[in-house]
Amino acid sequence: MIAKDDILAAFNFRHACKTFDPAKKISDADFGFILETGRLSPSSFGFEPWRFVVIQSPALREALKATVWGGQGQLPTASHVVAILCRKGGMRYDAAHIRHMMVDVQKLPEDKVAMKLDRYRKFQESDFRLLDSPRALFDWACKQAYVALGNMMTSAALIGIDSCPIEGYDVAATEALLVKEGVLDGEEFGLAVMAAFGYRINPQSAKTRQSMEEVVAWVR
Amino acid sequence: MIAKDDILAAFNFRHACKTFDPAKKISDADFGFILETGRLSPSSFGFEPWRFVVIQSPALREALKATVWGGQGQLPTASHVVAILCRKGGMRYDAAHIRHMMVDVQKLPEDKVAMKLDRYRKFQESDFRLLDSPRALFDWACKQAYVALGNMMTSAALIGIDSCPIEGYDVAATEALLVKEGVLDGEEFGLAVMAAFGYRINPQSAKTRQSMEEVVAWVR
Repeated sequence: MIAKDDILAAFNFRHACKTFDPAKKISDADFGFILETGRLSPSSFGFEPWRFVVIQSPALREALKATVWGGQGQLPTASHVVAILCRKGGMRYDAAHIRHMMVDVQKLPEDKVAMKLDRYRKFQESDFRLLDSPRALFDWACKQAYVALGNMMTSAALIGIDSCPIEGYDVAATEALLVKEGVLDGEEFGLAVMAAFGYRINPQSAKTRQSMEEVVAWVR
Repeated sequence: MIAKDDILAAFNFRHACKTFDPAKKISDADFGFILETGRLSPSSFGFEPWRFVVIQSPALREALKATVWGGQGQLPTASHVVAILCRKGGMRYDAAHIRHMMVDVQKLPEDKVAMKLDRYRKFQESDFRLLDSPRALFDWACKQAYVALGNMMTSAALIGIDSCPIEGYDVAATEALLVKEGVLDGEEFGLAVMAAFGYRINPQSAKTRQSMEEVVAWVR
Protein backbone atom coordinates (compact mmCIF):
# COMPACT_ATOMS: atom_id res chain seq x y z
CA MET A 1 0.00 0.00 0.00
CA ILE A 2 1.60 3.24 -1.19
CA ALA A 3 0.55 6.72 -0.08
CA LYS A 4 -1.83 8.43 -2.52
CA ASP A 5 0.09 11.71 -2.29
CA ASP A 6 3.31 10.01 -3.33
CA ILE A 7 1.59 8.47 -6.36
CA LEU A 8 -0.05 11.75 -7.34
CA ALA A 9 3.34 13.45 -7.03
CA ALA A 10 4.63 11.01 -9.66
CA PHE A 11 1.66 11.76 -11.94
CA ASN A 12 2.46 15.46 -11.64
CA PHE A 13 6.20 14.83 -12.12
CA ARG A 14 5.50 12.96 -15.39
CA HIS A 15 5.40 15.21 -18.42
CA ALA A 16 6.27 14.85 -22.09
CA CYS A 17 10.02 15.39 -21.68
CA LYS A 18 11.29 16.65 -25.05
CA THR A 19 15.01 16.75 -24.25
CA PHE A 20 16.90 14.53 -21.83
CA ASP A 21 20.27 14.96 -20.17
CA PRO A 22 22.46 12.91 -22.53
CA ALA A 23 24.97 12.31 -19.74
CA LYS A 24 22.48 10.51 -17.50
CA LYS A 25 21.71 6.87 -18.22
CA ILE A 26 19.00 4.75 -16.65
CA SER A 27 20.50 1.79 -14.77
CA ASP A 28 19.89 -1.71 -16.08
CA ALA A 29 17.90 -2.50 -12.93
CA ASP A 30 15.64 0.52 -13.36
CA PHE A 31 15.05 -0.02 -17.07
CA GLY A 32 14.43 -3.71 -16.49
CA PHE A 33 11.80 -2.66 -13.96
CA ILE A 34 10.13 -0.34 -16.50
CA LEU A 35 10.04 -3.13 -19.10
CA GLU A 36 8.67 -5.51 -16.48
CA THR A 37 5.69 -3.23 -15.81
CA GLY A 38 5.05 -3.20 -19.57
CA ARG A 39 5.28 -6.98 -19.69
CA LEU A 40 2.91 -7.36 -16.72
CA SER A 41 0.31 -5.02 -18.23
CA PRO A 42 -3.14 -6.44 -18.94
CA SER A 43 -4.37 -7.01 -22.47
CA SER A 44 -7.67 -8.09 -23.95
CA PHE A 45 -8.17 -11.83 -23.41
CA GLY A 46 -4.59 -11.83 -22.10
CA PHE A 47 -3.29 -12.17 -25.66
CA GLU A 48 -0.39 -9.67 -25.33
CA PRO A 49 -0.18 -8.29 -28.87
CA TRP A 50 3.00 -6.37 -28.09
CA ARG A 51 6.69 -6.49 -28.61
CA PHE A 52 9.01 -3.91 -27.04
CA VAL A 53 12.01 -3.01 -29.19
CA VAL A 54 14.61 -0.98 -27.28
CA ILE A 55 16.48 1.16 -29.78
CA GLN A 56 19.92 2.02 -28.42
CA SER A 57 21.85 2.12 -31.71
CA PRO A 58 22.96 5.74 -32.30
CA ALA A 59 22.93 5.11 -36.06
CA LEU A 60 19.32 3.88 -36.04
CA ARG A 61 18.24 6.73 -33.78
CA GLU A 62 19.87 9.20 -36.18
CA ALA A 63 18.14 7.56 -39.16
CA LEU A 64 14.77 7.74 -37.37
CA LYS A 65 15.06 11.52 -37.08
CA ALA A 66 14.17 11.67 -40.78
CA THR A 67 10.66 10.27 -40.22
CA VAL A 68 10.01 10.93 -36.51
CA TRP A 69 9.45 14.69 -36.43
CA GLY A 70 8.18 14.42 -32.86
CA GLY A 71 11.40 12.82 -31.62
CA GLN A 72 14.02 15.37 -32.68
CA GLY A 73 15.02 16.21 -29.12
CA GLN A 74 14.39 12.80 -27.60
CA LEU A 75 16.10 10.46 -30.08
CA PRO A 76 19.62 11.89 -29.62
CA THR A 77 19.37 12.47 -25.85
CA ALA A 78 17.18 9.77 -24.29
CA SER A 79 18.78 7.07 -22.23
CA HIS A 80 16.41 4.49 -23.72
CA VAL A 81 14.01 4.62 -26.69
CA VAL A 82 11.31 1.99 -27.11
CA ALA A 83 9.28 1.20 -30.21
CA ILE A 84 6.20 -0.77 -29.22
CA LEU A 85 5.17 -3.08 -32.03
CA CYS A 86 1.89 -4.94 -32.27
CA ARG A 87 0.87 -8.05 -34.11
CA LYS A 88 -1.38 -7.59 -37.14
CA GLY A 89 -3.13 -10.66 -38.61
CA GLY A 90 -1.58 -12.62 -35.74
CA MET A 91 -4.33 -11.30 -33.48
CA ARG A 92 -7.09 -12.96 -35.52
CA TYR A 93 -8.93 -15.72 -33.69
CA ASP A 94 -7.61 -18.28 -36.15
CA ALA A 95 -3.94 -17.23 -35.95
CA ALA A 96 -1.13 -19.34 -34.50
CA HIS A 97 -0.25 -16.67 -31.89
CA ILE A 98 -3.68 -16.94 -30.29
CA ARG A 99 -3.44 -20.69 -29.95
CA HIS A 100 0.13 -20.33 -28.65
CA MET A 101 -1.03 -17.89 -25.98
CA MET A 102 -3.87 -20.12 -24.80
CA VAL A 103 -1.99 -23.43 -24.90
CA ASP A 104 1.64 -22.59 -24.12
CA VAL A 105 1.40 -19.39 -22.04
CA GLN A 106 -2.01 -19.57 -20.34
CA LYS A 107 -1.80 -23.38 -20.26
CA LEU A 108 -5.54 -23.84 -20.69
CA PRO A 109 -6.92 -27.36 -21.14
CA GLU A 110 -8.34 -28.09 -24.59
CA ASP A 111 -11.99 -27.66 -23.56
CA LYS A 112 -11.23 -24.21 -22.16
CA VAL A 113 -9.26 -23.34 -25.30
CA ALA A 114 -12.28 -24.20 -27.44
CA MET A 115 -14.64 -22.15 -25.26
CA LYS A 116 -12.36 -19.12 -25.12
CA LEU A 117 -11.67 -19.27 -28.85
CA ASP A 118 -15.38 -19.34 -29.61
CA ARG A 119 -15.93 -16.32 -27.39
CA TYR A 120 -12.93 -14.51 -28.95
CA ARG A 121 -14.17 -15.21 -32.49
CA LYS A 122 -17.60 -13.75 -31.69
CA PHE A 123 -15.95 -10.79 -29.96
CA GLN A 124 -13.90 -10.09 -33.07
CA GLU A 125 -16.64 -10.81 -35.58
CA SER A 126 -19.61 -9.06 -34.03
CA ASP A 127 -19.04 -7.37 -30.62
CA PHE A 128 -16.16 -5.13 -31.72
CA ARG A 129 -16.32 -5.88 -35.47
CA LEU A 130 -12.55 -6.16 -35.58
CA LEU A 131 -12.50 -8.22 -38.75
CA ASP A 132 -14.09 -5.47 -40.83
CA SER A 133 -10.63 -4.37 -41.94
CA PRO A 134 -6.97 -5.12 -41.14
CA ARG A 135 -6.72 -1.58 -39.78
CA ALA A 136 -9.57 -2.09 -37.32
CA LEU A 137 -7.86 -5.23 -36.01
CA PHE A 138 -4.46 -3.54 -35.75
CA ASP A 139 -5.85 -0.40 -34.10
CA TRP A 140 -7.50 -2.59 -31.48
CA ALA A 141 -4.22 -4.40 -30.82
CA CYS A 142 -2.56 -0.99 -30.50
CA LYS A 143 -5.11 0.05 -27.85
CA GLN A 144 -3.72 -2.72 -25.66
CA ALA A 145 -0.20 -1.41 -26.30
CA TYR A 146 -1.23 2.00 -24.99
CA VAL A 147 -2.08 0.38 -21.65
CA ALA A 148 1.50 -0.92 -21.49
CA LEU A 149 2.77 2.49 -22.66
CA GLY A 150 0.89 4.26 -19.87
CA ASN A 151 2.10 1.78 -17.28
CA MET A 152 5.73 2.12 -18.37
CA MET A 153 5.59 5.92 -18.18
CA THR A 154 3.85 5.82 -14.81
CA SER A 155 6.21 3.25 -13.33
CA ALA A 156 9.16 5.32 -14.58
CA ALA A 157 7.73 8.44 -12.92
CA LEU A 158 7.17 6.52 -9.67
CA ILE A 159 10.94 5.98 -9.44
CA GLY A 160 11.86 9.47 -10.65
CA ILE A 161 12.52 8.71 -14.31
CA ASP A 162 11.25 10.95 -17.11
CA SER A 163 9.61 9.84 -20.31
CA CYS A 164 7.96 11.03 -23.49
CA PRO A 165 5.31 9.21 -25.51
CA ILE A 166 5.94 9.69 -29.23
CA GLU A 167 3.25 9.59 -31.91
CA GLY A 168 4.91 12.30 -33.99
CA TYR A 169 5.98 10.28 -36.99
CA ASP A 170 4.92 9.29 -40.46
CA VAL A 171 3.68 5.75 -39.84
CA ALA A 172 4.34 4.36 -43.32
CA ALA A 173 7.81 5.91 -43.66
CA THR A 174 8.86 4.91 -40.14
CA GLU A 175 7.68 1.35 -40.58
CA ALA A 176 9.49 1.18 -43.94
CA LEU A 177 12.69 2.37 -42.27
CA LEU A 178 12.38 -0.17 -39.46
CA VAL A 179 11.77 -2.94 -42.00
CA LYS A 180 14.81 -1.84 -44.02
CA GLU A 181 16.95 -1.86 -40.88
CA GLY A 182 15.79 -5.38 -40.04
CA VAL A 183 14.08 -4.26 -36.82
CA LEU A 184 10.50 -4.84 -37.93
CA ASP A 185 8.99 -7.89 -39.61
CA GLY A 186 6.35 -5.94 -41.48
CA GLU A 187 4.33 -9.04 -42.29
CA GLU A 188 3.77 -9.91 -38.64
CA PHE A 189 4.04 -6.58 -36.82
CA GLY A 190 3.26 -2.90 -37.19
CA LEU A 191 4.48 0.09 -35.21
CA ALA A 192 1.99 0.98 -32.46
CA VAL A 193 3.72 3.88 -30.68
CA MET A 194 7.13 4.97 -29.43
CA ALA A 195 8.41 6.24 -26.09
CA ALA A 196 11.64 7.73 -24.79
CA PHE A 197 12.99 7.44 -21.24
CA GLY A 198 15.74 9.28 -19.41
CA TYR A 199 16.34 12.23 -17.12
CA ARG A 200 15.12 15.74 -17.85
CA ILE A 201 17.56 18.55 -18.54
CA ASN A 202 14.99 21.38 -18.42
CA PRO A 203 12.28 22.12 -15.86
CA GLN A 204 8.83 20.90 -16.89
CA SER A 205 6.17 23.37 -17.94
CA ALA A 206 2.92 23.72 -16.01
CA LYS A 207 0.54 20.81 -16.51
CA THR A 208 -2.80 21.71 -18.09
CA ARG A 209 -5.90 19.54 -17.91
CA GLN A 210 -9.64 19.94 -18.15
CA SER A 211 -11.19 20.14 -14.68
CA MET A 212 -12.58 17.09 -12.91
CA GLU A 213 -16.09 18.51 -13.50
CA GLU A 214 -15.45 18.67 -17.25
CA VAL A 215 -14.27 15.07 -17.61
CA VAL A 216 -16.28 13.14 -15.02
CA ALA A 217 -20.01 12.46 -14.90
CA TRP A 218 -21.89 10.36 -12.36
CA VAL A 219 -24.97 8.21 -12.93
CA ARG A 220 -26.33 7.53 -9.46
CA MET B 1 10.70 7.90 -5.14
CA ILE B 2 8.89 4.65 -4.42
CA ALA B 3 10.57 1.25 -4.03
CA LYS B 4 10.51 -0.82 -7.21
CA ASP B 5 9.55 -3.96 -5.30
CA ASP B 6 6.47 -2.23 -3.87
CA ILE B 7 5.39 -1.14 -7.36
CA LEU B 8 5.96 -4.59 -8.83
CA ALA B 9 3.94 -6.06 -5.98
CA ALA B 10 1.04 -3.87 -7.11
CA PHE B 11 1.47 -5.02 -10.73
CA ASN B 12 1.31 -8.61 -9.53
CA PHE B 13 -1.64 -7.86 -7.23
CA ARG B 14 -3.62 -6.41 -10.16
CA HIS B 15 -5.64 -8.98 -12.06
CA ALA B 16 -8.91 -8.99 -13.95
CA CYS B 17 -11.17 -9.30 -10.91
CA LYS B 18 -14.41 -10.87 -12.14
CA THR B 19 -16.38 -10.72 -8.88
CA PHE B 20 -16.05 -8.16 -6.13
CA ASP B 21 -17.15 -8.22 -2.50
CA PRO B 22 -20.47 -6.35 -2.75
CA ALA B 23 -20.20 -5.31 0.89
CA LYS B 24 -16.96 -3.40 0.42
CA LYS B 25 -17.13 0.09 -1.04
CA ILE B 26 -14.22 2.24 -2.18
CA SER B 27 -14.04 5.45 -0.14
CA ASP B 28 -14.73 8.76 -1.87
CA ALA B 29 -11.12 9.80 -1.26
CA ASP B 30 -9.73 6.65 -2.84
CA PHE B 31 -12.04 6.72 -5.85
CA GLY B 32 -11.37 10.44 -6.33
CA PHE B 33 -7.67 9.55 -6.39
CA ILE B 34 -8.26 6.89 -9.07
CA LEU B 35 -10.21 9.35 -11.21
CA GLU B 36 -7.49 11.95 -10.69
CA THR B 37 -4.86 9.61 -12.13
CA GLY B 38 -7.12 9.14 -15.16
CA ARG B 39 -7.54 12.89 -15.50
CA LEU B 40 -3.79 13.49 -15.24
CA SER B 41 -2.99 10.87 -17.88
CA PRO B 42 -1.20 12.03 -21.01
CA SER B 43 -2.95 12.14 -24.38
CA SER B 44 -1.80 12.89 -27.90
CA PHE B 45 -1.24 16.64 -28.30
CA GLY B 46 -2.76 16.97 -24.83
CA PHE B 47 -6.24 16.95 -26.35
CA GLU B 48 -7.87 14.66 -23.74
CA PRO B 49 -10.52 12.89 -25.84
CA TRP B 50 -12.02 11.21 -22.81
CA ARG B 51 -14.95 11.45 -20.48
CA PHE B 52 -15.30 9.19 -17.45
CA VAL B 53 -18.87 8.19 -16.64
CA VAL B 54 -19.20 6.53 -13.24
CA ILE B 55 -22.17 4.21 -13.34
CA GLN B 56 -23.52 3.67 -9.82
CA SER B 57 -27.21 3.29 -10.64
CA PRO B 58 -28.23 -0.32 -9.84
CA ALA B 59 -30.95 -0.11 -12.49
CA LEU B 60 -28.52 0.94 -15.22
CA ARG B 61 -26.00 -1.68 -14.15
CA GLU B 62 -28.73 -4.32 -14.33
CA ALA B 63 -29.78 -3.10 -17.79
CA LEU B 64 -26.17 -3.25 -18.98
CA LYS B 65 -25.97 -6.95 -18.15
CA ALA B 66 -28.02 -7.56 -21.30
CA THR B 67 -25.27 -6.28 -23.62
CA VAL B 68 -22.11 -6.55 -21.50
CA TRP B 69 -21.48 -10.30 -21.41
CA GLY B 70 -18.03 -9.69 -19.94
CA GLY B 71 -19.43 -7.81 -16.96
CA GLN B 72 -21.87 -10.34 -15.49
CA GLY B 73 -19.95 -10.73 -12.25
CA GLN B 74 -18.59 -7.18 -12.04
CA LEU B 75 -21.67 -5.07 -12.78
CA PRO B 76 -23.68 -6.27 -9.75
CA THR B 77 -20.76 -6.42 -7.31
CA ALA B 78 -18.26 -3.69 -8.14
CA SER B 79 -17.99 -0.71 -5.87
CA HIS B 80 -17.57 1.58 -8.89
CA VAL B 81 -18.06 1.02 -12.63
CA VAL B 82 -16.63 3.44 -15.16
CA ALA B 83 -17.52 3.77 -18.83
CA ILE B 84 -14.78 5.69 -20.61
CA LEU B 85 -16.23 7.63 -23.51
CA CYS B 86 -14.23 9.29 -26.27
CA ARG B 87 -15.02 12.13 -28.62
CA LYS B 88 -15.65 11.20 -32.23
CA GLY B 89 -15.64 13.99 -34.85
CA GLY B 90 -14.74 16.35 -32.02
CA MET B 91 -11.14 15.17 -32.30
CA ARG B 92 -10.81 16.44 -35.90
CA TYR B 93 -8.34 19.30 -36.28
CA ASP B 94 -11.18 21.63 -37.28
CA ALA B 95 -13.49 20.79 -34.38
CA ALA B 96 -14.49 23.17 -31.59
CA HIS B 97 -13.07 20.86 -28.88
CA ILE B 98 -9.56 21.13 -30.31
CA ARG B 99 -9.66 24.92 -30.32
CA HIS B 100 -11.17 24.87 -26.81
CA MET B 101 -8.30 22.70 -25.55
CA MET B 102 -5.62 24.91 -27.06
CA VAL B 103 -7.15 28.27 -26.14
CA ASP B 104 -9.03 27.69 -22.88
CA VAL B 105 -7.21 24.74 -21.29
CA GLN B 106 -3.64 24.95 -22.62
CA LYS B 107 -3.90 28.75 -22.83
CA LEU B 108 -1.69 28.98 -25.90
CA PRO B 109 -1.24 32.36 -27.60
CA GLU B 110 -2.80 32.62 -31.06
CA ASP B 111 0.49 32.15 -32.96
CA LYS B 112 1.16 28.91 -31.07
CA VAL B 113 -2.43 27.79 -31.69
CA ALA B 114 -1.95 28.26 -35.42
CA MET B 115 1.36 26.35 -35.41
CA LYS B 116 0.02 23.47 -33.33
CA LEU B 117 -3.15 23.23 -35.38
CA ASP B 118 -1.16 23.05 -38.60
CA ARG B 119 0.99 20.27 -37.12
CA TYR B 120 -2.11 18.44 -35.83
CA ARG B 121 -3.85 18.68 -39.21
CA LYS B 122 -0.84 17.16 -40.98
CA PHE B 123 -0.58 14.49 -38.28
CA GLN B 124 -4.20 13.53 -38.82
CA GLU B 125 -4.16 13.83 -42.61
CA SER B 126 -0.91 12.13 -43.50
CA ASP B 127 1.23 10.87 -40.58
CA PHE B 128 -1.41 8.65 -38.99
CA ARG B 129 -4.07 8.96 -41.75
CA LEU B 130 -6.75 9.42 -39.11
CA LEU B 131 -9.19 11.11 -41.46
CA ASP B 132 -9.46 8.06 -43.74
CA SER B 133 -12.60 7.03 -41.86
CA PRO B 134 -14.57 8.03 -38.75
CA ARG B 135 -13.59 4.69 -37.25
CA ALA B 136 -9.86 5.33 -37.69
CA LEU B 137 -10.25 8.67 -35.92
CA PHE B 138 -12.31 7.19 -33.08
CA ASP B 139 -10.01 4.20 -32.61
CA TRP B 140 -7.07 6.59 -32.27
CA ALA B 141 -8.95 8.62 -29.65
CA CYS B 142 -9.70 5.35 -27.84
CA LYS B 143 -5.97 4.50 -27.77
CA GLN B 144 -5.47 7.56 -25.59
CA ALA B 145 -8.29 6.36 -23.34
CA TYR B 146 -6.48 3.07 -22.80
CA VAL B 147 -3.55 5.01 -21.32
CA ALA B 148 -5.96 6.49 -18.78
CA LEU B 149 -7.51 3.04 -18.27
CA GLY B 150 -4.11 1.51 -17.54
CA ASN B 151 -3.19 4.31 -15.17
CA MET B 152 -6.46 4.03 -13.25
CA MET B 153 -6.05 0.27 -12.80
CA THR B 154 -2.42 0.66 -11.77
CA SER B 155 -3.08 3.50 -9.35
CA ALA B 156 -5.91 1.44 -7.84
CA ALA B 157 -3.57 -1.53 -7.39
CA LEU B 158 -0.94 0.70 -5.79
CA ILE B 159 -3.40 1.44 -2.98
CA GLY B 160 -4.74 -2.10 -2.72
CA ILE B 161 -7.88 -1.74 -4.83
CA ASP B 162 -8.92 -4.33 -7.40
CA SER B 163 -10.16 -3.66 -10.90
CA CYS B 164 -11.28 -5.29 -14.12
CA PRO B 165 -11.00 -3.83 -17.62
CA ILE B 166 -14.10 -4.70 -19.64
CA GLU B 167 -14.20 -5.02 -23.42
CA GLY B 168 -16.71 -7.86 -23.32
CA TYR B 169 -19.71 -6.14 -24.81
CA ASP B 170 -21.55 -5.61 -28.06
CA VAL B 171 -20.43 -2.09 -28.93
CA ALA B 172 -23.46 -1.05 -30.97
CA ALA B 173 -26.02 -2.48 -28.53
CA THR B 174 -24.25 -1.05 -25.48
CA GLU B 175 -23.93 2.40 -27.04
CA ALA B 176 -27.61 2.27 -28.03
CA LEU B 177 -28.54 1.43 -24.43
CA LEU B 178 -26.42 4.26 -23.04
CA VAL B 179 -27.99 6.67 -25.51
CA LYS B 180 -31.48 5.50 -24.59
CA GLU B 181 -30.66 5.98 -20.89
CA GLY B 182 -29.44 9.51 -21.54
CA VAL B 183 -25.89 8.67 -20.46
CA LEU B 184 -24.26 8.95 -23.88
CA ASP B 185 -24.58 11.72 -26.45
CA GLY B 186 -24.02 9.46 -29.43
CA GLU B 187 -23.37 12.35 -31.78
CA GLU B 188 -20.39 13.59 -29.79
CA PHE B 189 -19.09 10.50 -27.99
CA GLY B 190 -18.64 6.78 -28.40
CA LEU B 191 -17.88 4.08 -25.83
CA ALA B 192 -14.14 3.39 -25.66
CA VAL B 193 -13.91 0.81 -22.89
CA MET B 194 -15.29 0.03 -19.43
CA ALA B 195 -13.71 -0.79 -16.09
CA ALA B 196 -14.90 -1.98 -12.71
CA PHE B 197 -13.28 -1.23 -9.35
CA GLY B 198 -13.75 -2.72 -5.90
CA TYR B 199 -12.37 -5.36 -3.58
CA ARG B 200 -11.89 -9.00 -4.58
CA ILE B 201 -13.94 -11.72 -2.96
CA ASN B 202 -11.94 -14.65 -4.40
CA PRO B 203 -8.19 -15.23 -4.55
CA GLN B 204 -6.62 -14.30 -7.88
CA SER B 205 -5.43 -17.02 -10.24
CA ALA B 206 -1.78 -17.29 -11.24
CA LYS B 207 -0.64 -14.56 -13.62
CA THR B 208 0.55 -15.80 -17.01
CA ARG B 209 2.72 -13.79 -19.39
CA GLN B 210 5.13 -14.38 -22.23
CA SER B 211 8.71 -14.28 -20.95
CA MET B 212 10.81 -11.11 -21.10
CA GLU B 213 12.86 -12.74 -23.87
CA GLU B 214 9.72 -13.30 -25.95
CA VAL B 215 8.47 -9.71 -25.75
CA VAL B 216 11.63 -7.59 -25.66
CA ALA B 217 14.25 -7.09 -28.36
CA TRP B 218 17.29 -4.82 -28.22
CA VAL B 219 18.87 -2.90 -31.08
CA ARG B 220 22.32 -1.90 -29.79
